[in-house]
Amino acid sequence: MGLKNKDLLGIEHFSPEEILLVLDTAASMKEIIGRQIKKVPTLRGKTVVNVFYEPSTRTRTSFELAAKYLSADSINISASGSSVVKGESLRDTSATIAALGADVVVLRHPMAGAPVLVAGQVKAAVINAGDGAHEHPTQALLDMYTVRDKKGALEGLKIAIVGDILHSRVARSDIWGFTRMGARVRVCGPSTMLPPGLENMGVEVFHRMEEALSGADVIIMLRIQLERQQQGLFPSVREYARLFGLNSEKLALAKPGALVMHPGPINRGVEIATEVAYGVQAVINEQVTNGLAVRMALLYLLAGGVAQ
Amino acid sequence: MGLKNKDLLGIEHFSPEEILLVLDTAASMKEIIGRQIKKVPTLRGKTVVNVFYEPSTRTRTSFELAAKYLSADSINISASGSSVVKGESLRDTSATIAALGADVVVLRHPMAGAPVLVAGQVKAAVINAGDGAHEHPTQALLDMYTVRDKKGALEGLKIAIVGDILHSRVARSDIWGFTRMGARVRVCGPSTMLPPGLENMGVEVFHRMEEALSGADVIIMLRIQLERQQQGLFPSVREYARLFGLNSEKLALAKPGALVMHPGPINRGVEIATEVAYGVQAVINEQVTNGLAVRMALLYLLAGGVAQ
Amino acid sequence: MGLKNKDLLGIEHFSPEEILLVLDTAASMKEIIGRQIKKVPTLRGKTVVNVFYEPSTRTRTSFELAAKYLSADSINISASGSSVVKGESLRDTSATIAALGADVVVLRHPMAGAPVLVAGQVKAAVINAGDGAHEHPTQALLDMYTVRDKKGALEGLKIAIVGDILHSRVARSDIWGFTRMGARVRVCGPSTMLPPGLENMGVEVFHRMEEALSGADVIIMLRIQLERQQQGLFPSVREYARLFGLNSEKLALAKPGALVMHPGPINRGVEIATEVAYGVQAVINEQVTNGLAVRMALLYLLAGGVAQ
Repeated sequence: MGLKNKDLLGIEHFSPEEILLVLDTAASMKEIIGRQIKKVPTLRGKTVVNVFYEPSTRTRTSFELAAKYLSADSINISASGSSVVKGESLRDTSATIAALGADVVVLRHPMAGAPVLVAGQVKAAVINAGDGAHEHPTQALLDMYTVRDKKGALEGLKIAIVGDILHSRVARSDIWGFTRMGARVRVCGPSTMLPPGLENMGVEVFHRMEEALSGADVIIMLRIQLERQQQGLFPSVREYARLFGLNSEKLALAKPGALVMHPGPINRGVEIATEVAYGVQAVINEQVTNGLAVRMALLYLLAGGVAQ
Repeated sequence: MGLKNKDLLGIEHFSPEEILLVLDTAASMKEIIGRQIKKVPTLRGKTVVNVFYEPSTRTRTSFELAAKYLSADSINISASGSSVVKGESLRDTSATIAALGADVVVLRHPMAGAPVLVAGQVKAAVINAGDGAHEHPTQALLDMYTVRDKKGALEGLKIAIVGDILHSRVARSDIWGFTRMGARVRVCGPSTMLPPGLENMGVEVFHRMEEALSGADVIIMLRIQLERQQQGLFPSVREYARLFGLNSEKLALAKPGALVMHPGPINRGVEIATEVAYGVQAVINEQVTNGLAVRMALLYLLAGGVAQ
Repeated sequence: MGLKNKDLLGIEHFSPEEILLVLDTAASMKEIIGRQIKKVPTLRGKTVVNVFYEPSTRTRTSFELAAKYLSADSINISASGSSVVKGESLRDTSATIAALGADVVVLRHPMAGAPVLVAGQVKAAVINAGDGAHEHPTQALLDMYTVRDKKGALEGLKIAIVGDILHSRVARSDIWGFTRMGARVRVCGPSTMLPPGLENMGVEVFHRMEEALSGADVIIMLRIQLERQQQGLFPSVREYARLFGLNSEKLALAKPGALVMHPGPINRGVEIATEVAYGVQAVINEQVTNGLAVRMALLYLLAGGVAQ
C-alpha cells in the first residue's frame, strides 16, 4: 500500500490510512536519525528541488537534511516574493524544474493553492511546504507524530490550538489532521483572529484561554506573526501575552502531563513564557526531530515508494 | 580526442569538431537524465566551484545539478556586483579558489573577458557562464544541441535571432556557433539594438521581423532586458511587442514546423505571445533539459576527460 | 590520543600537544587535497551544520569543502545580524540544530562567547569560526601550520603581527597560539588599535613598524576593517598605509626569506602593497589550502575521532 496521490498538497483530503502510513514510515526513519551513521542509500540518484518563495530556514533545512540522509541530490531555489505576483510565472518555473529532472519539488509559496497548480503541471511529486494561509501539511504530520509518540494514540485526545487561527496554515492543517484521526480539537484566540465557519470543521471555539485549556491533553501554541497583524486589531503584544500567552498558571489548568507544542521559532514572553518553553511538558525540540523523520518518510513514499 | 583547451571561454574560437564532440557527449549525458537513477560516479572526488557575480537561478541550478549527477562536489559562491569593480579583486578571488583545490570554476561575471583573466591564473578548467555582453557559450551549445536534436543537422538551416542583439551575449555566442556549423543566421531587432559590424560576423541583418522570419527553420527569441534598456531608445514595451514580439501570425511566416526557442525566463506577452510560448513548435523546456546535458558533457570533458 | 574537549572554542586553552595533533592530522589531510580524487569516506553519514551570523564566503567555503572532501553531509544556515540581538534566541537556534542531528556545528557569531554558550547546550561538537573580537582559532591553526610547514618549527621564531590588534580575533588567537608553541610574538599598530594589557599576553608591543619588523621571521598583516574604525580615530587610510602598510622597503627590514601572511581578503595598497602581496615571500594562497587541511583535521578529530 502507498499514498493515493503523487503529491502531498494538504491534509484536508488525506485519509486516516495515509496519515498512519506516513507516521509509521517516519518511525523507521527516526531510527536512522538516531544512528551514528545517519545515511541510507534509499533515494540515491533521485533529485529533490526545494523551491522557497518565502524565507524559511527551519523547514528548508529540515527538507534539505531529509534528502541528504536518504542520499538524494537536493538543490535550493529561493525567490523573492516580488518576482511571483502572477501564477503564470509559477507555471514557467514549474516547467523549468520539471525539465531539470526533479523527482520531488518541495514548494513554499505565499499564495494558497500554488502547490496544486504546480502539481498539475509536473510529473514530479510536489510537497506543500506551506502555501499562504491555507495548509502546512508536513507540520501537521509532525505534530500528529509527536502526540502519538508521547500519548500512544490520537483518538479521543483533547487538542487545544491557541493563537491567530485566522492566518495560520499550521492551525488549518492541524485541525484537519487531528480531527481526521479522532481527536477533539479546540481553538482559542481573540475574536479578530478566529475565522468564521470553524464549527463546520468540527472544532470547538473558545474565547477564553482558561476554558480552552481545561482538561486538554495537548496544547499547540501558534507563533504570533507580528508582521501579519493589522494595526488596531488588538490592543498590544503585552495584552495579547496576558490573555493568550501560555504560562505556568494556565498550563496547570490542562491535564497533568499535557504536552506543550509550538511550530517554532518561538516568541518567548509573547505566546509562550520561558519557564513553559523550557519546562518538562514542552516537546518543541522533539517536534524538530520528528519533522525531519516525517519529511524523510514523505520523500521515501513519494519518490522511492513505487520502485521499492 | 578531446577539447583543445583546458577552458571553455567562448564559442568564437571553438572548432566545429569541438562543438560536435560536446554535442555527442551531451547526447550520452541526456540518457542519464532520463533514467530513474540519475547518477554516475564519473567525477567523484572532483570539485566544481560556481562563482556567480550576477544572480542566475537558472544557469547556476543547471551547473549545480550537472555536477551532482556526475557525483562531483560543488559549492556556490555568489557575490554582489558592487564588490567586484576592479579586475584585481577577481585575481585574488581566483587565487583563493585555486588554493581550495577546485577542478572546475564556473564563472558568471558582468565584465566581458573576466573568464579569460581567471583562466590564465588557475590550473582549474574555467567555464564561462556568461561574461557581460560578450559570450554565453553553454547557452549556444544547448541551442545547437536542441536544433540538431530536432532537425537532424545544423548545416544549411536558416536561424533567425530576434531582439536586443546589441546587449545579448546569447546572440553573440549563437551567431558564432551556428555559423561555424554551416547554418545561415539572420538577426532582427530595432536599429538601436543592432551593433555595427554584424555583416563581418557573416549574418544577415533585418529590421522588419516579417522578413527575418520568412522561410526560417528556427526562431530564437531573446529576452528583453528591461533594466538594460536606456530610456528613450524605444517608444514603449507595447510598441516593442507589436513590432518584435513573436505571435501566431508572424510564426506562420516561418517554415512549417519551425522551432521556437528562448533562453528563458520568458517575458510572456512581450517578446513572445502566450499561445506561441506554449505552442507545439516551442522547444523552450527541451532547451532546459539539453542545457543540463551540455553542462554535464562539459564538466566531463574538462574535468574528467583526460583520465578516462 | 585525541583532543581533550568535544569542541574547539578557542586557542587560549588549547595545549601544545593538542595544537601539534591538529597540525599533524592536517598534514595527512593536505595530501588528500593534492590528489586527483579529493574524497575519503571518513565522515560519511556525519552532519556538519555551518551557522554563520556574519557573512564569510572564505571561511564558510573552506568548512563546506572540508566536510565534502570527508564525505560528510553539510548544510549552511546564514542569519542576518539583526535577528540575533539576544543570546536567548541563539539558545533556541542551538536546540533546533541539535534536534536535527548535527554532529558538528560550525559557528560564526558577532558576539564574543557565543560558541561557548552553544557548546554547553548541544551534544554536537562546536567549532568557533570567529566570535566577535574574541577568537578565530581555525585561522590561528592554519597560520601555525603554514609557518611550521615553511620554517620547520615554531619555537624561537619572531612573529610580527601588524594592524588593528584591538578589534582582531585573528590577532588574539594567533598571539595565544604562537606564544604557546614557543614563538616570540610582536604586535604593532596605531596606539588607538592596541588594547591595554598586551604585556600580560607575553607579547612585545611596537608603535613603529620598522622596529617591529626588524629581524622578524614571519609578518602577519591584518585586514583593515574599514567599517569597524570609528571616525576620527586615525587620520586617513592613506596615512595608515604609509605608516602600517607593508611594502618592499619595510619588508627588507625583516629576516631574509621572512614569510608574509594575511588572513584575506586583502586590501591591496592599504595594509599590503601589490608587489609584496604577489611577491615570492608571500604565502597567502598556501594559507588558504592549509586552512582547508586544518578544518578537515578538526572535523575528523571532533566528529570521527572517537569511532576510528
